[in-house]
Amino acid sequence: MSQANTTDVTAYMQQVGQQARAASRALAAANTGSKNAALMAIHDELKNAKQDILAANKIDMDKGQKNDLEAALLDRLELNDDRFEGMLQGLKDVAALPDPIGEVTDMTYRPSGIHLGKMRVPLGVVGMIYESRPNVTLEAASLALKSGNAIILRGGSEAFESNQAIAKCIHQGLKKVGLSEHSVQVLQTTDRAAVGELITMTDYVDVIVPRGGKGLIERISNDAKVPVIKHLDGNCHTYIDSDAEEEVAIEVSVNAKTHRYGTCNTMETLLVDEAVADELLPKIAEAIVAADDAMQLRLDDKSQSILNGNTKLEGHLSAATDEDWDTEYLAPILAVKVVDGLDAAIEHINTHGSQHTDVIITDNYSKSQRFIREVDSASVMINASSRFADGFEYGLGAEIGISTDKIHARGPVGLEGLTSQKWIVYGKGETRA
Amino acid sequence: MSQANTTDVTAYMQQVGQQARAASRALAAANTGSKNAALMAIHDELKNAKQDILAANKIDMDKGQKNDLEAALLDRLELNDDRFEGMLQGLKDVAALPDPIGEVTDMTYRPSGIHLGKMRVPLGVVGMIYESRPNVTLEAASLALKSGNAIILRGGSEAFESNQAIAKCIHQGLKKVGLSEHSVQVLQTTDRAAVGELITMTDYVDVIVPRGGKGLIERISNDAKVPVIKHLDGNCHTYIDSDAEEEVAIEVSVNAKTHRYGTCNTMETLLVDEAVADELLPKIAEAIVAADDAMQLRLDDKSQSILNGNTKLEGHLSAATDEDWDTEYLAPILAVKVVDGLDAAIEHINTHGSQHTDVIITDNYSKSQRFIREVDSASVMINASSRFADGFEYGLGAEIGISTDKIHARGPVGLEGLTSQKWIVYGKGETRA
Repeated sequence: MSQANTTDVTAYMQQVGQQARAASRALAAANTGSKNAALMAIHDELKNAKQDILAANKIDMDKGQKNDLEAALLDRLELNDDRFEGMLQGLKDVAALPDPIGEVTDMTYRPSGIHLGKMRVPLGVVGMIYESRPNVTLEAASLALKSGNAIILRGGSEAFESNQAIAKCIHQGLKKVGLSEHSVQVLQTTDRAAVGELITMTDYVDVIVPRGGKGLIERISNDAKVPVIKHLDGNCHTYIDSDAEEEVAIEVSVNAKTHRYGTCNTMETLLVDEAVADELLPKIAEAIVAADDAMQLRLDDKSQSILNGNTKLEGHLSAATDEDWDTEYLAPILAVKVVDGLDAAIEHINTHGSQHTDVIITDNYSKSQRFIREVDSASVMINASSRFADGFEYGLGAEIGISTDKIHARGPVGLEGLTSQKWIVYGKGETRA
Repeated sequence: MSQANTTDVTAYMQQVGQQARAASRALAAANTGSKNAALMAIHDELKNAKQDILAANKIDMDKGQKNDLEAALLDRLELNDDRFEGMLQGLKDVAALPDPIGEVTDMTYRPSGIHLGKMRVPLGVVGMIYESRPNVTLEAASLALKSGNAIILRGGSEAFESNQAIAKCIHQGLKKVGLSEHSVQVLQTTDRAAVGELITMTDYVDVIVPRGGKGLIERISNDAKVPVIKHLDGNCHTYIDSDAEEEVAIEVSVNAKTHRYGTCNTMETLLVDEAVADELLPKIAEAIVAADDAMQLRLDDKSQSILNGNTKLEGHLSAATDEDWDTEYLAPILAVKVVDGLDAAIEHINTHGSQHTDVIITDNYSKSQRFIREVDSASVMINASSRFADGFEYGLGAEIGISTDKIHARGPVGLEGLTSQKWIVYGKGETRA
């Protein structure tokens, strides 16, 4: 199906779905060796096709520039030598990961005599909807293959040529080891109606993983009939407790805010215990502003009374509004609030946070344990930068997304998030009394 | 809010949701001892209020009879001495279960220095929608409490008085141990609009567990914005392999089909390998018909040619139509098909089954292992009755439902299905490089 011929998107998507379902049955039964061989065959195809892929990417980049794509999108769209090497390395990394499929746990005898346990199995068919980054095509395909799932990929139209060139390598690799090409299908249409079909084909798709802006993900979640593993936003907090060690408070805050701005695990609000705010807040604020002269601090009343007039912060301060506590800036902006101790900090985080990643800086045992238990977020940390909330840092090998849901997969999602566990029963002719 | 005053259902449900969310925060931090004390306090309240509850149930029963409720519904609605004892025992059983909350697993050091693991935590707020059985009110409340979740219960209007009487005991029990009464809220309205609110209040409800007919569950799944743990149907198969032991094949088939008809784990289709069909099918069919004279067998062509003319089966046989392979009878009806070996059996089950519970009868190692791996169902069994697919038989203590989904919870759902795992990070001031 060419881009020009998308009149019957429903029929096309039904066909894609049926092919994916059939391929998923075979993949579920594929052994670890052949899945790894497929990943390495794709690695070799990709390596050999580097010039073709970069040429396809150049077509996308030229078109993007002509269409005045914004700089951030163009940056994500670009495949340079470094990113290409990263893709190749990613395939080797995923091949080296242990196969999650087939793991049997909790086998016990029940009083009836049956031997009962759980076996980890693939979900079946994964639908992935994402925006500009073409390397996501490869990442998602490799995680799906390793976990025995077929995948349907719907990348952004701006990356169409790059994605098709990568898909060609994936198909050649799959073919080489005798696995179905339908194991990985990159949609050959940019028609938006295809997304609507993909997220409602409950017969053929078991889970949708969207990656992109909050607007896209909200639309998908709202319209989907297939379950969605979704990441909405990352409004991450660092709470400086009265028992924080000064150096840790400063270094972790600077890292959590200034290491990268566009990432979901970046700190957006700094909370400081009133008891140490006079002492610590100026030092932390100065260090953050020193790290980036573009930094803007949005202050509540109490932090204003502490920081206003500080010459090192001149031009960097303004008053926070209520909206700031609920905002993911993804920019050199930080909301700052002085709170009345741990309870107020937990209350603020559970009320205004996005249940993504929240941090306490403290050297007090009891308060650290209360924070860990009572903060209702996907990642809760003591004395560490929220920037660690990441599939690679967590050792998941690669990351298919970060979930802000509580159901099924929470936080960084790697291979295990693409599996489920079925019950298995070994009997000897038992019947129920 | 009385039943008469339901004009502003939205406002009422928002209030219920806010109260549940607040209660869930406290419950998440409640210790195991106080949760167990609450369960035992509810046990005592219930025991003391037995006459009140049976009287309330009598009002519902009388109303049901007056309104010509069907017999099956009336049966489920009735609270007799046995069922009341079962409710009391259920509370003790759940109190005796280990607390799933707080379990920490997979703690490992990462190269960055952080100490990373997972902690099991409550989902938050559970919404339960169910039909006539008032004992579900208590079962669901006790599982929610034990797993640290607040719960909003919406029972059938036919059980309104029974449910309110049980709710009163639950609230008194909660109060006695100092837990919020809002931990368990039984809706005080029978307005159907309340269901629509409950399943879309994503700010206040984390998961919906519907129990009831397929129509109800499909409607809820279709309209819900909150994730749903759902059980659609149980079209369960037993496959008699050519290496089946005769006695096991007969006994398990009889048990799987005739032990109970209205349950989702009852066998609906019998598949028999062609190689042994002449020998085994008549014996199995005769035994099933002998167990219940009301039994009807719906036969494919090959099983007709084997069974037609068998005098013991006279009046019990008819031809199957295509529809039969996809039907959950919940009745003394069994579809029978002769298949060409294991591959055909797996293909039939994965195509026509409902991914609930499927069984192979065999004494062959390789075929048993292929069946376990390749059948894509929540429970896959060797030489055991599908009737074992049940929370109690699986040792879950109590059962909040059986899931035919693959996401989050699969098969019988007990306490663990009402929990999630958050990532926890213990640091010493680590920052990301």
